[in-house]
Amino acid sequence: MHRDDYLQYDQEDSLASYRQYFTLPKGIYFCGHSLGAAPKSVEVSLLQLLQEQWGKEAVCAWNRSAWIDMPNRLGNKIGKLIGAKNDEVVVADSTSINLFKLLAAALALQPGRNIILTENDNFPADLYIAEAVAKLHPEVKLIKCHRTQIAKHLEQRTAVLMLSHVHYRSSEVYDMQFMTELAHQHGALMLWDLAHSAGIFPLELSKHNVDLAVGCTYKYLNGGPGSPAFLYVRKELQQHIQSPLTGWMGHLHPFAFSDDYLPANGINRFLCGTPPILSMSAAETSIDLLLTIEMKKIRIKSQQLSEQLIELMSRYCGSMQRVSPLDSHLRGGHVAYLHPQAFAINQALLAHGFITDYRQPDLIRIGLSPLYLRYVDIWDFVHTLKKILDEKIYCHDQFNRPVKVT
Amino acid sequence: MHRDDYLQYDQEDSLASYRQYFTLPKGIYFCGHSLGAAPKSVEVSLLQLLQEQWGKEAVCAWNRSAWIDMPNRLGNKIGKLIGAKNDEVVVADSTSINLFKLLAAALALQPGRNIILTENDNFPADLYIAEAVAKLHPEVKLIKCHRTQIAKHLEQRTAVLMLSHVHYRSSEVYDMQFMTELAHQHGALMLWDLAHSAGIFPLELSKHNVDLAVGCTYKYLNGGPGSPAFLYVRKELQQHIQSPLTGWMGHLHPFAFSDDYLPANGINRFLCGTPPILSMSAAETSIDLLLTIEMKKIRIKSQQLSEQLIELMSRYCGSMQRVSPLDSHLRGGHVAYLHPQAFAINQALLAHGFITDYRQPDLIRIGLSPLYLRYVDIWDFVHTLKKILDEKIYCHDQFNRPVKVT
Repeated sequence: MHRDDYLQYDQEDSLASYRQYFTLPKGIYFCGHSLGAAPKSVEVSLLQLLQEQWGKEAVCAWNRSAWIDMPNRLGNKIGKLIGAKNDEVVVADSTSINLFKLLAAALALQPGRNIILTENDNFPADLYIAEAVAKLHPEVKLIKCHRTQIAKHLEQRTAVLMLSHVHYRSSEVYDMQFMTELAHQHGALMLWDLAHSAGIFPLELSKHNVDLAVGCTYKYLNGGPGSPAFLYVRKELQQHIQSPLTGWMGHLHPFAFSDDYLPANGINRFLCGTPPILSMSAAETSIDLLLTIEMKKIRIKSQQLSEQLIELMSRYCGSMQRVSPLDSHLRGGHVAYLHPQAFAINQALLAHGFITDYRQPDLIRIGLSPLYLRYVDIWDFVHTLKKILDEKIYCHDQFNRPVKVT
Repeated sequence: MHRDDYLQYDQEDSLASYRQYFTLPKGIYFCGHSLGAAPKSVEVSLLQLLQEQWGKEAVCAWNRSAWIDMPNRLGNKIGKLIGAKNDEVVVADSTSINLFKLLAAALALQPGRNIILTENDNFPADLYIAEAVAKLHPEVKLIKCHRTQIAKHLEQRTAVLMLSHVHYRSSEVYDMQFMTELAHQHGALMLWDLAHSAGIFPLELSKHNVDLAVGCTYKYLNGGPGSPAFLYVRKELQQHIQSPLTGWMGHLHPFAFSDDYLPANGINRFLCGTPPILSMSAAETSIDLLLTIEMKKIRIKSQQLSEQLIELMSRYCGSMQRVSPLDSHLRGGHVAYLHPQAFAINQALLAHGFITDYRQPDLIRIGLSPLYLRYVDIWDFVHTLKKILDEKIYCHDQFNRPVKVT
């Protein structure tokens, strides 16, 4: 294999044309799993929003430019990407806040069940929120176990099984159908965090009878820094569960300003405060771009990129220890490697124009966004990393001490 | 008095030059109390953010462009406008979510006290959230009373007195110092909602020993549709109270991703999820403009505009019943009037280019934002309304039936 072969892959790549729609940092950007790159179309849509809507319609734009429908409209668009039915998804608040709403709602629905079950190595922010929910209700228990022990810990008191579909560090993927059925066999609700799945992995939430889900829009959905999160509630559950955060946007008649709180019918009862229109509009523009592509195509290119990365890494950068699964069906959109000098390597890569993601204490994550990465980028990355490792180029550790990367 | 006198006021208005910094709807915009107008500088700052930061720095912008500091930086800027000390204010989430955090925190701090006391005619969205907090804790009681009866209802079990500084309908203002002292006399914490005060009313939160406050940035702070809210916690309280929504941004070491939750020192423990940078940046640009003006000057022009409106309305539009106080010291930034055909009048005004705000069933609110309204606008508004009332111009009621406004 030569660099030319990778250039040839790019020639044959049916998604290659999408790269032109993004503004990309100088160098090669391998952090789309953290913050997706900026679609150029966002500039146009935000300027239009500022000038024509906020500027010229001002408060009237809530109706005239349908700002008020944005949480639903955008939710339905995301629904298409994750295999949800219409009106099963809304966009609102942050992933943490949405998780709080759904966990509290799931517990309140099942008074005889008091356990939140999750993986002990789940994303820490999700664990913090689960602890917060448990703290509010003295009878609620949070049980954290190894991902291989979940079946053993499911029991008749389990109210909800909360898992992240793609692991934030290792990129390991759960079998969504299998785990959801497992939870249901024990009468528990299934709640998925789709932060590292939405926009990179074809999902079938409705088909697999998933009960609840949350996710963010700023990773593979390219929604922009801190763009609002989404939440999913299975249609049949919607009239039976209630948000603990009863804001005015979740009211049956938000504009009646009645003294009594009546939850909206359907998914809207999980809205809370006034939606952040600027951030939401940027996310909508980005997601519109994604909707022009079949999710399957994105997944295929994602798998090919990561397969080639793993292949080249094992050949040229043997001192980096892969933590992501070898089987691409069990792997999400990023690939992670361990190295005792991960910090310094990450810095050296950056100095060479390769933006990867360091995680304390010794992890590097390489995010492979199929919309704006080229096959040749993988080749160039691995060969630069090989050079850094082979030639023991000096860089600095987290304490700014010079270290030799070996 | 003639129209020329009002043109003369505009000539002498030291804030007149600020109007040029806004994109304004065609006609005259009297809804700044609902959604502040768009500062032109937001276009420049958002384009810069999209192209130079999100576009060229991408994930590195969290540090390089100090996105991560935005909740604090913007909080401190708002702090200056409301008389708070440095590090007493952060920007995060929505007003409803922030209210939930502070009410729950206030109750948890005082186990012997279980009552949230508020005005029965408080903003309904605030009441919904207070009910939500009460619902989570069976021992907590929400007591709602008339605004004149608050002193009578304060007692040794009152944990927190929650009031809106400026009333969303009537524009009535509470004496912040007096009410805060009253709450303290009974050992209760004082929580103010500043939605209709921040940016229009000079406030002295620290000086008056206010314990807790929330507010929004999209009204008189012109932060844009759904721009994020702020919250204030008195410095001395910060280490003693905790947010019930323990998101990763409120962690002592947000980037360590440790398994255990340790709340940040100070106000940052009230942050939760990833901040919406686009919406936050627009708000910061708007607030930077406001910071170039002394709050006192804004208040003086606000009082003069509303005094003149009231004076002209009583002379020319006698059938409109004022609900806002006559004494400008007791009045916030808008003036409200009742009329049985308020809906139709609001529509007729709109047809004449005057954008006012109708509230079910019979209220019109006229928001008077001193940064972009002219004295002559008041004159033109009242004389158009007079014409609508006098000449019985036809318009349509909320059921689209033609009505004669009389």
